[in-house]
Amino acid sequence: MRVLLVGAGGVGSAAVAIAARRSFFETMVVADHDPDRAERAVTGHGDRFVAAQVDASSADAVAALCREHRITHVLNAVDPRFVMPIFDGAFAAGADYLDMAMSLSQPHPSRPYAETGVMLGDEQFARSDAWSADGRLALCGIGVEPGLSDVFARYAADELFSEVDEIGVRDGANLTVDGYDFAPSFSIWTTIEECLNPPVVWERDRGWYTTEPFSEPEVFHFPEGIGPVECVNVEHEEVLLIPRWVRARRVTFKYGLGDEFIDVLRTLHKLGLDAVSPVGVRGVDVSPRDVVAACLPDPATLGDRMRGKTCAGTWVRGLGPDGQPREVYLYHVVDNEWSMREYGHQAVVWQTAVNPVVALELLATGAWSGVGVLGPEALPPTPFLDLLVDYGSPWGMEERPLTSAVTAT
Amino acid sequence: MRVLLVGAGGVGSAAVAIAARRSFFETMVVADHDPDRAERAVTGHGDRFVAAQVDASSADAVAALCREHRITHVLNAVDPRFVMPIFDGAFAAGADYLDMAMSLSQPHPSRPYAETGVMLGDEQFARSDAWSADGRLALCGIGVEPGLSDVFARYAADELFSEVDEIGVRDGANLTVDGYDFAPSFSIWTTIEECLNPPVVWERDRGWYTTEPFSEPEVFHFPEGIGPVECVNVEHEEVLLIPRWVRARRVTFKYGLGDEFIDVLRTLHKLGLDAVSPVGVRGVDVSPRDVVAACLPDPATLGDRMRGKTCAGTWVRGLGPDGQPREVYLYHVVDNEWSMREYGHQAVVWQTAVNPVVALELLATGAWSGVGVLGPEALPPTPFLDLLVDYGSPWGMEERPLTSAVTAT
Repeated sequence: MRVLLVGAGGVGSAAVAIAARRSFFETMVVADHDPDRAERAVTGHGDRFVAAQVDASSADAVAALCREHRITHVLNAVDPRFVMPIFDGAFAAGADYLDMAMSLSQPHPSRPYAETGVMLGDEQFARSDAWSADGRLALCGIGVEPGLSDVFARYAADELFSEVDEIGVRDGANLTVDGYDFAPSFSIWTTIEECLNPPVVWERDRGWYTTEPFSEPEVFHFPEGIGPVECVNVEHEEVLLIPRWVRARRVTFKYGLGDEFIDVLRTLHKLGLDAVSPVGVRGVDVSPRDVVAACLPDPATLGDRMRGKTCAGTWVRGLGPDGQPREVYLYHVVDNEWSMREYGHQAVVWQTAVNPVVALELLATGAWSGVGVLGPEALPPTPFLDLLVDYGSPWGMEERPLTSAVTAT
Repeated sequence: MRVLLVGAGGVGSAAVAIAARRSFFETMVVADHDPDRAERAVTGHGDRFVAAQVDASSADAVAALCREHRITHVLNAVDPRFVMPIFDGAFAAGADYLDMAMSLSQPHPSRPYAETGVMLGDEQFARSDAWSADGRLALCGIGVEPGLSDVFARYAADELFSEVDEIGVRDGANLTVDGYDFAPSFSIWTTIEECLNPPVVWERDRGWYTTEPFSEPEVFHFPEGIGPVECVNVEHEEVLLIPRWVRARRVTFKYGLGDEFIDVLRTLHKLGLDAVSPVGVRGVDVSPRDVVAACLPDPATLGDRMRGKTCAGTWVRGLGPDGQPREVYLYHVVDNEWSMREYGHQAVVWQTAVNPVVALELLATGAWSGVGVLGPEALPPTPFLDLLVDYGSPWGMEERPLTSAVTAT
């Protein structure tokens, strides 16, 4: 296996540190628009890693780099603006492809908070037949959320339930960052994108539909000392992926943003500072959202100042194998202190990065295989969950008291 | 009188429309960094107005333009970053100078919310002797606030009180803008500057000192139907100007920002988006505050969508001529519907722009004269207030119930 990792930011750099301890691949080329950043990511991790420069907005540049290094698998670790050129570049070069976020959505032109427009991943799924015909695999959304959360959903449906009523991905943390008034622990570009787009919900009787941002707030109790966090609906790939392969009545994603973060996002939107399209500013054109990101500290550099834990997981309600109502939360917690000590990478980026490395190893060993554009829930969950434990990062499961009557499915 | 007006934004354009109806000057050159904007400002106002291009950050460029047009008075109507080059350029060319905001402050390096550092106008006052020696006048802060508010303070001290306890400038409005989630009615650059800098307060026994932003909230009742508005301390020139010429025990400035605006300003600060210094964004350098301004609608263009009134004024408490406690509010209200109908300019910029035009006329007629760096309260208030009425924009005065016991002065 010869891997091209595109993006040497927080997640990419953590993926290098995780992969460096595994033997399943022959080489990993780490490419970034900033060659110094790529060089820093590979330094100290051995000669299987090679730094390179790439323009991720150019499918031709991605394909050329694949051919130069005889790449078999492209792992996309840049922000989702660049999904399509990297996806197309990998296809053109005959490589398999993995990403952690899917092609971007466009709101419905007249009813954005009720109906879907272009949905997350639509552009990629539209190419699935071409990938299948070439015998190539695009494994999409294989970070932690989407990614591990989708594996949990499939695992629950396969092993824990006879009927699934609702699948709700729930993400929460108790992380704090010393010394900053405001310092997000993950890419602000992506956070703005997913939180300000109309959240998407799936119901069997209705299909996909959208709501107002930050809708349906609920207090969710997270395990391992994190405790109660207010979560709200957010646009996320799981809602688009899970219903394609897992039978359920309803699928949601809620993110534990907290009041302060919601207020910041609402304010950015109110002022138009969430916009991606460039504005003219004294003779230069810049994307306001890029300016917001440039004003904030790089989340990948905050590990030493962070304290606390982050939790990703999938809550499932339905009927257990015995036909009795059941409710479980399958989860994965990373303590920042642990990830910094063990890997030198903060908890949120580490938790995202470990999953595509596990997936690459399953593809290398043949435990996972497939063709076309697939989500993680299209593949058998148990090998993934077992190998994650082998990476030193166990997952957990809580049986939960029933929150309400289960709808017959 | 031959005037160079620097800046053809909202206030500059309104000043042209106001001056066009007066005969006291021979010519007015309207210069902007954007020559098209200057051209738009003068179009239709007659051949006394000439458009020009100027780099307001260059004292040499300002001086050259003054010499080219034999300018006698420079009126600065750009944001306060450019005060010093325009002030210096006017001096170099032997012209008198007027502005509506003074040279910028710098917070105290170690105790920003307790002690002053460099204060508003310090750089200009440091040059006062040179202006006096040349027999030249720099009349600073002659918009509405500072400007008319300072004239009110001097008028109260001269005509209405035997002893002045406290002078509090209070600014509030009930303006709304249809069709925008958030649309400030005045320059966001200047609003950020004055609201996020440590507010300054003057007390006779203590001198100037600073507080935390948004300190000492109070509900102030504004006249002519505007009603109660929560006002907070804000850094403003009046607090630096009034004590130099008017005897009082305490001078404050409070701005009726409202909760939403305060929240927006706090959020911009939390994210570093209020910063003036450039940040690097994908290969270009931009000032985050300029990006915020570029994302918002130009307040000068919002007049058709605005509704309501804006009020500027000076509240004074002390002992009346009879030695009895007295409290008054001297104020000036502009209804947006009136200013749009009469002049085609929205209320806030019109209200700012009328005052320097009145001042220029008083200088042209000789009713006002002086040398050195002066504030509006250094000059006799009655001719100003009378001429303002002649411009069709009357001011008002309310006797107020006493808010508390008057401190002996």
